[in-house]
Amino acid sequence: MYNFDEKSYRKEAELTYETRTDIEQIADMISKEGFSNIFFIASGGSLAIMNPVHYVLKQRTAIPVYLEVAAEVIHTGNKELTKDSLVITASKSGTTKETVAVTKWCIEQGIRVFALCGKMDSPLSQLATYSVIGKAKDAPEFEYMQLFMFTMRLLHNNCEFPDYNRFADQLATLPKDLIRFRDEFEPQAMKIAEVCHKEPYQMWIGGGSIWGEIYSFTMCVLEEMQWNRTKAVTSAEFFHGTLELVEKDTPVVLVKNDDNTRMLDERVENFLPKVCDKYFVIDLHNFRFSQIDDQFRAILMAPICSAIIGDCLSAHYEKCSGHSLDIRRYYRQMEY
Amino acid sequence: MYNFDEKSYRKEAELTYETRTDIEQIADMISKEGFSNIFFIASGGSLAIMNPVHYVLKQRTAIPVYLEVAAEVIHTGNKELTKDSLVITASKSGTTKETVAVTKWCIEQGIRVFALCGKMDSPLSQLATYSVIGKAKDAPEFEYMQLFMFTMRLLHNNCEFPDYNRFADQLATLPKDLIRFRDEFEPQAMKIAEVCHKEPYQMWIGGGSIWGEIYSFTMCVLEEMQWNRTKAVTSAEFFHGTLELVEKDTPVVLVKNDDNTRMLDERVENFLPKVCDKYFVIDLHNFRFSQIDDQFRAILMAPICSAIIGDCLSAHYEKCSGHSLDIRRYYRQMEY
Repeated sequence: MYNFDEKSYRKEAELTYETRTDIEQIADMISKEGFSNIFFIASGGSLAIMNPVHYVLKQRTAIPVYLEVAAEVIHTGNKELTKDSLVITASKSGTTKETVAVTKWCIEQGIRVFALCGKMDSPLSQLATYSVIGKAKDAPEFEYMQLFMFTMRLLHNNCEFPDYNRFADQLATLPKDLIRFRDEFEPQAMKIAEVCHKEPYQMWIGGGSIWGEIYSFTMCVLEEMQWNRTKAVTSAEFFHGTLELVEKDTPVVLVKNDDNTRMLDERVENFLPKVCDKYFVIDLHNFRFSQIDDQFRAILMAPICSAIIGDCLSAHYEKCSGHSLDIRRYYRQMEY
Repeated sequence: MYNFDEKSYRKEAELTYETRTDIEQIADMISKEGFSNIFFIASGGSLAIMNPVHYVLKQRTAIPVYLEVAAEVIHTGNKELTKDSLVITASKSGTTKETVAVTKWCIEQGIRVFALCGKMDSPLSQLATYSVIGKAKDAPEFEYMQLFMFTMRLLHNNCEFPDYNRFADQLATLPKDLIRFRDEFEPQAMKIAEVCHKEPYQMWIGGGSIWGEIYSFTMCVLEEMQWNRTKAVTSAEFFHGTLELVEKDTPVVLVKNDDNTRMLDERVENFLPKVCDKYFVIDLHNFRFSQIDDQFRAILMAPICSAIIGDCLSAHYEKCSGHSLDIRRYYRQMEY
């Protein structure tokens, strides 16, 4: 894949997988202590990653699971967020202001916080009750691996995911699939980026367990890193307003999930050709795992998206636009 | 206010308030039966209305509350959604496909559904365990009145809202405040509509308990009814991507909440003048109730938004653009 350092990716995958023992030990300790519910709390890109994990969990566990925006919950509270809760958070830099603040606020109230941090000795890792270092530089799919190991282990301990060990063993093979998926997706990535990078506006549609990825790619990549105007909407909600905007030459990208919400994407897919000539369909069904059981497939839709869209497609937008993904004019450049 | 039939609004307000007794009787019956949690489930505009109610409730009740998209939850399920749950739904027409389907699905599983329907004898009202008719034509603020009477009564029965009767009594005075707010807001509505209706793109920012209104105004009014391209983002999340899009001449509207998340809006308000010349701030603090206690104010931010933005501002967009709010080119015009 263009602009992809496979060697270092493989190394990072190994470093990530090495955290399995730590993650499981922490999960087992927490299960032993007991907890009444799970709160996923984060900001921006890390919030987007929590979304699919939350989405998968609520279908599989009788433990109540909640998703909150860090900056908001610190002001509003949530009656379910108590000393018996388990908070799961993450920050790549380990310094995200709102995430650090909410972690401090939780700890002061005696609420346990499990944090994934990109950096050792960051404010977040120092504050959190339990922290695991994400040794990978910038690949959300490794954070998904860690989050799914952690949460599925909790479910396993709650007698809700008996095949945890098989799942976690097979997760070791995910990174090499994700490398292959990048290559398989690259021709389509080139086509999409070539058309869409120069559009004044583009619409992205997808939902269910990959909504977090659609949200994050449009906001954190296209808007933040490419300064492209976007609209992101779920396949379910598309028909309650946004559809009226679509014209022959509106650039639209639909990402079809490969799980139980797929038929909602198919409804969009049926509609688009009737009114639009400039749409693309990315079908996650085409990306097949080599050694991961079908029973685990639905859990892992978001990591596929992260690899092919968040990474591969981002690189091709950058290539086409000549606009570096690293330029910010405001974020962390000024006080507000 | 322009294009506002005050007389019929007052009549509809009365008809709405007359449902109080029915609503309370149903709530009391459900409280007596008992329930383990509350699920708000709907689609599009009705989902947008559930959002603020869910947001207010999660800060005030130890009863677990969840918000789900009708079209999705029917495919995914949710482990917390059981026979002991109480589902709250709504549909103006009483025919919204996904909402009718999810209600049928719930009833088949023995899950109780409370439905607000715009029409008597609609498929939704016939299916639901309990239904209350919204006699108002098209004013979400009346649905808010009914939903808050119903849910706050449940909290009252759960010893979490002792002042329910005072609150419900005072709610009777809300409509006349909302009429006055329309008049007070109209000069600003004219300015915003005049500038923004001809823009190829506009950004709307707001969050906390009014996020549903921002979501709904951009998607269900600007996109669906005016065919204007929009980006809606919460004040908290604005700084995690979307801010990079703002330039001197980007049209931006910030709606400042008047509750515990207000400081997140203030952060956006501090940022905007540094980079943008074409922004508007709608401050909900300026709209003061005449006979509703301050202690209830935070509950009622969304109805204020609905009156001034959803209704008054919509009318002024229509006036400026000459594009009727009633035209649809696809929605319910074709099969998909």
